[in-house]
Amino acid sequence: MALYVYKFGGTSVGTAERIKSVAEKVKKAHDTGDQIVVVVSAMSGETNRLVALAKEMQTQPSDRELDVLLSTGEQVTIALLAMALHNLGCEACSYTGSQVKILTDSSYTKARIREIDDAKIRNALNQGKVVVVAGFQGVDEVGNITTLGRGGSDTTAVALAAALKADECHIYTDVDGVYTTDPRVEPKARRLDKITFEEMLEMASLGSKVLQIRSVEFAGKYNVALRVLSSFTEGNGTLITYEDSDMETALISGIAFNRDEAKLTITGVPDLPGIAHKILGPIADANIEVDMIVQNIAEDATTDFTFTVHRNDYLRARDILEQTRQDLGARKLTGDDAIVKVSIVGVGMRSHAGIASTMFKALASEGINIRMISTSEIKISVVVDEKYLELAVRSLHSAFGLEA
Amino acid sequence: MALYVYKFGGTSVGTAERIKSVAEKVKKAHDTGDQIVVVVSAMSGETNRLVALAKEMQTQPSDRELDVLLSTGEQVTIALLAMALHNLGCEACSYTGSQVKILTDSSYTKARIREIDDAKIRNALNQGKVVVVAGFQGVDEVGNITTLGRGGSDTTAVALAAALKADECHIYTDVDGVYTTDPRVEPKARRLDKITFEEMLEMASLGSKVLQIRSVEFAGKYNVALRVLSSFTEGNGTLITYEDSDMETALISGIAFNRDEAKLTITGVPDLPGIAHKILGPIADANIEVDMIVQNIAEDATTDFTFTVHRNDYLRARDILEQTRQDLGARKLTGDDAIVKVSIVGVGMRSHAGIASTMFKALASEGINIRMISTSEIKISVVVDEKYLELAVRSLHSAFGLEA
Repeated sequence: MALYVYKFGGTSVGTAERIKSVAEKVKKAHDTGDQIVVVVSAMSGETNRLVALAKEMQTQPSDRELDVLLSTGEQVTIALLAMALHNLGCEACSYTGSQVKILTDSSYTKARIREIDDAKIRNALNQGKVVVVAGFQGVDEVGNITTLGRGGSDTTAVALAAALKADECHIYTDVDGVYTTDPRVEPKARRLDKITFEEMLEMASLGSKVLQIRSVEFAGKYNVALRVLSSFTEGNGTLITYEDSDMETALISGIAFNRDEAKLTITGVPDLPGIAHKILGPIADANIEVDMIVQNIAEDATTDFTFTVHRNDYLRARDILEQTRQDLGARKLTGDDAIVKVSIVGVGMRSHAGIASTMFKALASEGINIRMISTSEIKISVVVDEKYLELAVRSLHSAFGLEA
Repeated sequence: MALYVYKFGGTSVGTAERIKSVAEKVKKAHDTGDQIVVVVSAMSGETNRLVALAKEMQTQPSDRELDVLLSTGEQVTIALLAMALHNLGCEACSYTGSQVKILTDSSYTKARIREIDDAKIRNALNQGKVVVVAGFQGVDEVGNITTLGRGGSDTTAVALAAALKADECHIYTDVDGVYTTDPRVEPKARRLDKITFEEMLEMASLGSKVLQIRSVEFAGKYNVALRVLSSFTEGNGTLITYEDSDMETALISGIAFNRDEAKLTITGVPDLPGIAHKILGPIADANIEVDMIVQNIAEDATTDFTFTVHRNDYLRARDILEQTRQDLGARKLTGDDAIVKVSIVGVGMRSHAGIASTMFKALASEGINIRMISTSEIKISVVVDEKYLELAVRSLHSAFGLEA
């Protein structure tokens, strides 16, 4: 007898019909004798409806009251799913975050889980019931309702799986797993049976369509085996594991990419200690997030400094940097807001040499000029002109043999 | 500084605009320095929407899950009202039934309040906040969400007023008070400034349009002064008090009536002990509610027995009674399903003679034949043919000087 935590997002429970079909899926699993805890989100559209009502009351609604309001969304779903299960003759019992209880800090709208009291759930499971828990919500020490912020239902599911030492935590979504790259860019993209947590984190650009990064981190911290599956089709999805000791690990698991990047370069900067801070400090002060950072020493003892930002922040960052350039007496400021980042990700590259050169060769053979390179232990990212995005992704997908 | 509990029903909080206007009313009262606790229902239509969703899941939804579902309705309203108050610069804090906490038994969908922990509310009031509490809901000893059944928000308000020893409990509705009779029948009907609890209970047919009888009983038990007012207009409404010692008490406070009555008479019943039970026992077993009961001894040592039931139960009661008649060897069974009950209600009749004869004279002078009479300490009810309803009400309204 295994214990599973299933999580169904808003789209999966978006209509009465879909809730019934979730109930059927859950009953089928329960009938095999496994213990099942189901975490559900609000029905899709419901949160938006409630937020719109809140904004009619107050332009900037109070966070505490917003949590009281929004937490009703999941509460509706748990009751409906429990009824749908009863209707199939499957014993079930619903719990809100307060009832479980999922103890959080008091940071309304973005609370962090501190502790889960699993007594009620274990008790109900031991009575043979399916336990249905409201995702996204918790309760603070004095009984205020809190919510966990974006992707909170994933976090609830992973936290419950950790607390209950579940065998696996299944995240049901509208995609059937994690792919080697975006199938809209490379139709030959293949669903991965497995991917490591680290790869999943590095593939944020792909993974974020599937799972909130925060819940992946959480799962990694508590050794929870996550599986991403489709609510609408059958299949085993993708299992997200701890580092794979499997000798047959693929070199590269996937090709990730980020559109909407922009890069800024300041050249001929006097190469003095603390220069990186002088350049990036004002950018950080303006709340602009910096992604890749590359610094080269030029021959004349000055340095060239390049970094990327989100394209929306490009003009603002450029203005700030122009001021910095003048202050530092640097030679020139250049920029480009028509670039993208393409990355190869894989734990295999730790133990294999030559990955980078395979990557650069594949891009060169297509005539794609690399504008910037950055590496981490399990990822190599390059910046290329936007127009090359699809070509770059496809050529790398092929060069590393990822095709279906 | 006084402490008031205000209750606003579903119609009063039915739209965003109405919630805002409730907030304005509350703020105005709070600004005078009084302490205000507000109890709200679900926005009108919301409960029906949720029930419809539930029925899509299960024809007969589980009571426990129904309560989890329906309690979200009030939770939405408390959050929105708190936001609307914040928006007016009025400090406010919302609480669900579980949070307060309003401890009930575990009779889902019709729970009874056992105890209210007023610590959180007092604390918030002492901080100068308006406290907004979800009506209709509570929590049982082990943390299950319960609801109080029909009119539950009135009960919540009265129970809170009792627990907090509030100066008055204001029930805001879509009528501006209790009237001497239904203004749709007698346009000269007048709003009463005061009415006693007992009169209110006896005027169920009028009062039930305004207040749930259960909350009136509850208020009487705990000496809570109730006031019925309009959410939409200004005015002092009607205060519902304990027995009035005021010497100037009106003889009669109002004229109540029940349409949809039917009467059944069994004549020539052998007059033996236990005969009433033999006649009414099978009716009660069939879950048919009996209203008025009249028994007369006939001259031939048999008895005539008459009672009224709701018109919907008429045919069923008649069939049962025909069997009883045969079993008892009674002479005849007659019935009439085109009758109504008209009552005069007033604590004044306790200390004044001649009320009944005034009533009978007024009806006689209009040629209205009385078919049945029943009296209690503060009410005299007569059954008359349905066609005389309006005429009877108006003639009594006038005979007792109730006109505006």
